[in-house]
Amino acid sequence: MTIDDPELLAEVTAAFNEYERALMEDDIPAMDQLFHDAPTTNRYGVGEVLYGIEEIREFRKGRGGSPQRKLGKVSIVTYGDRFATADAEFFREGSDRRGRQTQSWVKFPDGWKVVSAHVSLEGSTH
Amino acid sequence: MTIDDPELLAEVTAAFNEYERALMEDDIPAMDQLFHDAPTTNRYGVGEVLYGIEEIREFRKGRGGSPQRKLGKVSIVTYGDRFATADAEFFREGSDRRGRQTQSWVKFPDGWKVVSAHVSLEGSTH
Repeated sequence: MTIDDPELLAEVTAAFNEYERALMEDDIPAMDQLFHDAPTTNRYGVGEVLYGIEEIREFRKGRGGSPQRKLGKVSIVTYGDRFATADAEFFREGSDRRGRQTQSWVKFPDGWKVVSAHVSLEGSTH
Repeated sequence: MTIDDPELLAEVTAAFNEYERALMEDDIPAMDQLFHDAPTTNRYGVGEVLYGIEEIREFRKGRGGSPQRKLGKVSIVTYGDRFATADAEFFREGSDRRGRQTQSWVKFPDGWKVVSAHVSLEGSTH
């Protein structure tokens, strides 16, 4: 299995960056376009658990946008010809807690899509 | 691309359950066996960020075992013939905060391995 094929890595990195742009601008159609449209797509956010694309859409509509943030270390890896993981740190404006975002990406006929995402703030272990 | 091939889903579910058993028993060799042995394997824990299998191994050795927990809802999905995601809620003994664990699994010649993991406790969004 090829790890980090350069062309695929460039594709996923572009999709990752486009998602970050859309998140910062609360561009909901663009965010929606980058998540796999299926009941199997899940997202764990800082303060919520969402199962299926419909719950994710409802959350986005009611959220009023994400807090602004800057990315820290980003680690994107591709496995084979249609799967990738993106692990990223972020820092929200006005917060000194480190944020962490992981995404699993799958390449479908219509492009790379997130099938599972998890966002949290680093905290105490209790 | 086949989603949720029954045989693959059974394989990943077995690996997921074996990891949970190993975690609860602090069976470090078994946990290590189920994580991909590579510098690209990452794990974000409740209170730490770990890049590469060596950092993950160091953390496990020094941890003294995970808090005991019970699993809640578990959502495992396979994509194609060698990729899967496992999203799971958990509840630690003595804590009323919901835990969330996501894992990305890849099927290598020597079996299914976690290539990226993220564990957090649901919290306030600030």
